[in-house]
Amino acid sequence: MLALSIVIAAGALSIIYGIVTVRAVMAADTGTQRMRDIADAIREGAQAYLRRQYTTIALVGIVLFVLLGFVLGWIVAGGFAAGAVLSGAAGFIGMNVSVRANVRTAQAATNSLADGLDIAFRSGAVTGLLVAGLALLGVAVSFAVLVHGIGYAPDSRTVVDALVALGFGASLISIFARLGGGIFTKGADVGGDLVGKVEAGIPEDDPRNPATIADNVGDNVGDCAGMAADLFETYVVSIVATMVLAIVAFAGSPSLGAVLLYPLAIGAACIVSSIAGTFFVRLGVTESIMGALYRGFIATGVLSLAALALVTWLVFGDPTAALTTAGGETFSPLALFGCGVIGLLLTAVIVVITEYYTGTQYRPVQSIAAASRTGHGTNVIQGLAVSLEATALPALAIIAAIIGANALAGLFGIAIAVTAMLALCGFVVALDAFGPVTDNAGGIAEMAGLPARVRTATDALDAVGNTTKAVTKGYAIGSAGLGALVLFAAYTSDLAHFTAHPDLYTYFAGVTVDFSLSNPFVVVGLLFGGLLPFVFGGFGMTAVGRAAGSVVEEVRRQFREKPGIMTGESRPDYGRAVDLLTRAALREMILPSLLPVLSPLVCFGVVLLVAGRSDAFAAVGAMLLGVIVTGLFVAISMTSGGGAWDNAKKFIEEGHFGGKGSEAHKAAVTGDTVGDPYKDTAGPAINPMIKITNIVALLLLAVLAHG
Amino acid sequence: MLALSIVIAAGALSIIYGIVTVRAVMAADTGTQRMRDIADAIREGAQAYLRRQYTTIALVGIVLFVLLGFVLGWIVAGGFAAGAVLSGAAGFIGMNVSVRANVRTAQAATNSLADGLDIAFRSGAVTGLLVAGLALLGVAVSFAVLVHGIGYAPDSRTVVDALVALGFGASLISIFARLGGGIFTKGADVGGDLVGKVEAGIPEDDPRNPATIADNVGDNVGDCAGMAADLFETYVVSIVATMVLAIVAFAGSPSLGAVLLYPLAIGAACIVSSIAGTFFVRLGVTESIMGALYRGFIATGVLSLAALALVTWLVFGDPTAALTTAGGETFSPLALFGCGVIGLLLTAVIVVITEYYTGTQYRPVQSIAAASRTGHGTNVIQGLAVSLEATALPALAIIAAIIGANALAGLFGIAIAVTAMLALCGFVVALDAFGPVTDNAGGIAEMAGLPARVRTATDALDAVGNTTKAVTKGYAIGSAGLGALVLFAAYTSDLAHFTAHPDLYTYFAGVTVDFSLSNPFVVVGLLFGGLLPFVFGGFGMTAVGRAAGSVVEEVRRQFREKPGIMTGESRPDYGRAVDLLTRAALREMILPSLLPVLSPLVCFGVVLLVAGRSDAFAAVGAMLLGVIVTGLFVAISMTSGGGAWDNAKKFIEEGHFGGKGSEAHKAAVTGDTVGDPYKDTAGPAINPMIKITNIVALLLLAVLAHG
Repeated sequence: MLALSIVIAAGALSIIYGIVTVRAVMAADTGTQRMRDIADAIREGAQAYLRRQYTTIALVGIVLFVLLGFVLGWIVAGGFAAGAVLSGAAGFIGMNVSVRANVRTAQAATNSLADGLDIAFRSGAVTGLLVAGLALLGVAVSFAVLVHGIGYAPDSRTVVDALVALGFGASLISIFARLGGGIFTKGADVGGDLVGKVEAGIPEDDPRNPATIADNVGDNVGDCAGMAADLFETYVVSIVATMVLAIVAFAGSPSLGAVLLYPLAIGAACIVSSIAGTFFVRLGVTESIMGALYRGFIATGVLSLAALALVTWLVFGDPTAALTTAGGETFSPLALFGCGVIGLLLTAVIVVITEYYTGTQYRPVQSIAAASRTGHGTNVIQGLAVSLEATALPALAIIAAIIGANALAGLFGIAIAVTAMLALCGFVVALDAFGPVTDNAGGIAEMAGLPARVRTATDALDAVGNTTKAVTKGYAIGSAGLGALVLFAAYTSDLAHFTAHPDLYTYFAGVTVDFSLSNPFVVVGLLFGGLLPFVFGGFGMTAVGRAAGSVVEEVRRQFREKPGIMTGESRPDYGRAVDLLTRAALREMILPSLLPVLSPLVCFGVVLLVAGRSDAFAAVGAMLLGVIVTGLFVAISMTSGGGAWDNAKKFIEEGHFGGKGSEAHKAAVTGDTVGDPYKDTAGPAINPMIKITNIVALLLLAVLAHG
Repeated sequence: MLALSIVIAAGALSIIYGIVTVRAVMAADTGTQRMRDIADAIREGAQAYLRRQYTTIALVGIVLFVLLGFVLGWIVAGGFAAGAVLSGAAGFIGMNVSVRANVRTAQAATNSLADGLDIAFRSGAVTGLLVAGLALLGVAVSFAVLVHGIGYAPDSRTVVDALVALGFGASLISIFARLGGGIFTKGADVGGDLVGKVEAGIPEDDPRNPATIADNVGDNVGDCAGMAADLFETYVVSIVATMVLAIVAFAGSPSLGAVLLYPLAIGAACIVSSIAGTFFVRLGVTESIMGALYRGFIATGVLSLAALALVTWLVFGDPTAALTTAGGETFSPLALFGCGVIGLLLTAVIVVITEYYTGTQYRPVQSIAAASRTGHGTNVIQGLAVSLEATALPALAIIAAIIGANALAGLFGIAIAVTAMLALCGFVVALDAFGPVTDNAGGIAEMAGLPARVRTATDALDAVGNTTKAVTKGYAIGSAGLGALVLFAAYTSDLAHFTAHPDLYTYFAGVTVDFSLSNPFVVVGLLFGGLLPFVFGGFGMTAVGRAAGSVVEEVRRQFREKPGIMTGESRPDYGRAVDLLTRAALREMILPSLLPVLSPLVCFGVVLLVAGRSDAFAAVGAMLLGVIVTGLFVAISMTSGGGAWDNAKKFIEEGHFGGKGSEAHKAAVTGDTVGDPYKDTAGPAINPMIKITNIVALLLLAVLAHG
């Protein structure tokens, strides 16, 4: 209990860090009245959207809460509620900080680039550390209450089910937030650009564009709240899956307590190292923003490595002791430490690869920019080529990590690698949440007519924000893919546990699951799972296309009915565009969100009818892997490809191949438009989709075992 | 031997059909001297390309022939040579008919639409029936020589290895022909359009465009020779895999002879029904070209159904007799007939689904056309959305077919379903090979300045050709995916056979392969296999982009150096563009072609070093499934999406959303350009890529067993 208290204290520390930092950010100057007015409009729009999004999710959530309560008991339903509420809170608080920091960043940038970076980064760090802290607290406090409070055995089914339900709650928020936010932000961005830049010929963030406030609102609800919910979920679900794996693998072993504590302790240690890392972010004499952020990131990584060693020693004592699983596998704490190191290294490798594929200084982005010279078509062809190619190295890195961690400590080793990878999420989310703040700051500077040098400073911050956003997405998908493998392992372990005790779990009597690839139902499951990311991606793209189309029509209508907008004599009705997108995003997010929730049930039901229980379990298990196999590639190709298109445009805007206004630039704008829903809606939403499929399958097992 | 003689006679019948039909086509009028000149230029270019392509492939082929001869013996190497030579012959003859039929079709269209259709379809039917006939002959004659000639037992390893090597020979030609032809044709098409339509503002097939002959050459080397090699390979490989499966499953059983004969007999019967079907293609009073083609297709399907029943009765006698595998599975000939019916039904279902996603009269294509109104970006976004969504129904149909065939007769049932599906390939390839002929006929009519009504007739034929090309690709990929599953089954059966006899196959002593999804090396294999289609697709797209870029520069150079071209005073140098593309296509096809050949070896080698033989076999097996799982979706999304983009442009050209020349049309041209390499280079080349990976794995087993 002492160790668990320390873990909880580390979670609490992140909240204290958040409160202190928020105070510091809020104390900063908010600039002129015009700036405040614009920021108010953005804030109101974002809050209105999030309120309605959460109301919609709450309706679905309450239905599921009652269902879970009746089927699996109210303790499990409570876990679900806790996961959902904490995930929602992380996104809500983060976004509220973000919409207040934007105007302060713009004002600070009037002083210096360093001041602007300071406010923007610190507000992002609040979101980042709240995500990590609340996620850790959610798992640790739930575990403490169930085991030390109510007195359940750590390996009792109620504990497992409640933890899985906690993950399910987080997943539910995450998929809705990712999709809804993604559709909102890219509907506004694509629609606004099409009608503003292309048709009316006015620059981005021009106050005459009625969609411009909606675009800035979108940055906050998509990149800030959506990303926060996503990584909150990945964190919770991966730690939960690691613990479930530990419970099944070490059931009845004296090491159970230690291996259960280990993932939580890693999370706690890395919160401390992430907080420490934030203090290393300071603009040096070279004025390199990316350099400042990387300094902080590297510091966090190095400190985490040390913390990992310390934690391993504290939790296990003798690093060469033998930990033996119920299956007879044996490995040492040192091997587990090695797996943690693999997780940290994988994070670094994925960051480097993503930067290669999305950075303006490397071949892929430059090849897209060069292809823009021969037109829109060749730009898109080359962009698609890069997006397909960009999947290879991350996949190979993940494969290497799996092989390495497995060699050291089997499946549990892979789980520990994922845990270590995700333990860094406090700092990584900070990098991402920095993006919308600087993007907004640039918009406010533009709309409020601040001097050109301010816009130059915010543009510099914004360009870095694009890179960090791409890097974070690579990290999110890599960890999600690996985390899903752990979830799949939890599914097979759970299933093995149930089928081994048919007396307790009568539904599983006579079930012998053949997960071999030569079982045709495994192939069926793989194919069925494999199609989900494609269909889901297609839905996401269509939704953005439709939302953008309605924005285009609304803006055209405003321009037509109020000719004074273009001359600057009358103000556009910003609220209408925000309202319209809010309705579109909420309407469009429901169906695709239900796809991963219902698919495991449909797969199980159909195969059950055709071939019986054993094959149904095999098909669902294979389906989980099928979703991971195609989902990983589809998601990486979309996020990397989208980032590369975006920066190919920026590369041309820097003056290459004719620069701004050239034919090459027009082609690059098309590529950027295509990349927008790729990288910010469909691609990132595949993460929670993969995991929700897995967690629903785990819940299905729980329900069948209970019934 | 009598039965086998009948099969061989059916193969010979297809060749006789070919000779008779070629004579009839060649007897038709070749029109004016100007038309003949143009046709000669196309023919010379196509022949020059194919000659150089085959020379390049021959170099690789000779190396592999010698390698196979030394390692597995010269009989096996002979099988490889036979597969390669026959595949090359099918493509070569087909293309030679096609480049002679084009001008005759143009001339016949001056008489009537019905005459034009007649020449074009019959020349396509020559290619189609040669593909089916030569493929069947290759397998049947090889089997007859080995078993009845030399006297090997039907289930001896030499027979299996020689048949697999036959498939490998076909695969090798196929991947080179698909990629090389695809890069040539789309490099010419994209490059020619960009510089002609977009920059110079001249219509497609305008004789002033120096790339126009190359574009027409491309249709023949890509859509005709490339597709022929692809389906030849799918046919051979699937029948071989079915026979290998039969040999392993029925080793020592009295039914072995019958089950080995059955797939060959299905092929023979369907050649006869396909020939019969060609006589049903005749333009009715409604003048519906698609109607005429569908009439022939439906006739072929119905006749094949009857033929399938007859063949089942002739091969097995009592339809309710029990066929028992070595593993103890039992099923009746009636069940196998049911599997054949599933294969025929799956073909019909895939044709209908593909038409839905690529036909101008349905929602998907119209949604892309509608999205073109708001610009290039939204056109591409909606096209990508359709391409992703288009994977779902074909995958579900394939899943249903697997479940159905497996329920009737296990893995061998799935193999029979694939065999029946592919047995229709004579007619299906005829539909596809019809496309380049009509496409060329339109080009010749345009360049030779024939009256407008001729161009109207050839345009009508060409539009139908676009649909049949898309439909054929859906069929090719569906059958390839299912065929690859049979190959995978052959891999696992082979492996089980070797590990069961460690005394004979010493390398396999102590090997126990765990194909379960909970083996981390299975996950590693799935991920590694999964990345191949993405990387391969990326290579293909990049290659087309580069080839098109060099065409653009060549055409710009000619326009610049000879200003007389645009005024019609001087003739462009068509040969330079053909030459340039030939070199580009051959250069670009090598590296991606080697990817699937080397990947199984790399995967095996790496896992062997890290974890030993058992896990290496597991990883390679999983890799084969991984390639299928992502390859199926990537290929379907590319070919359907590309077809939809193409027809969205046609839909606008029909006068919707502003018609030709409108802004929507420009956006639709961009989409069409993007779709070109998607649907004609990267997407279709994934078929042979999937199968070559599988067949190399089978050869790897043979080599290890031999050594």
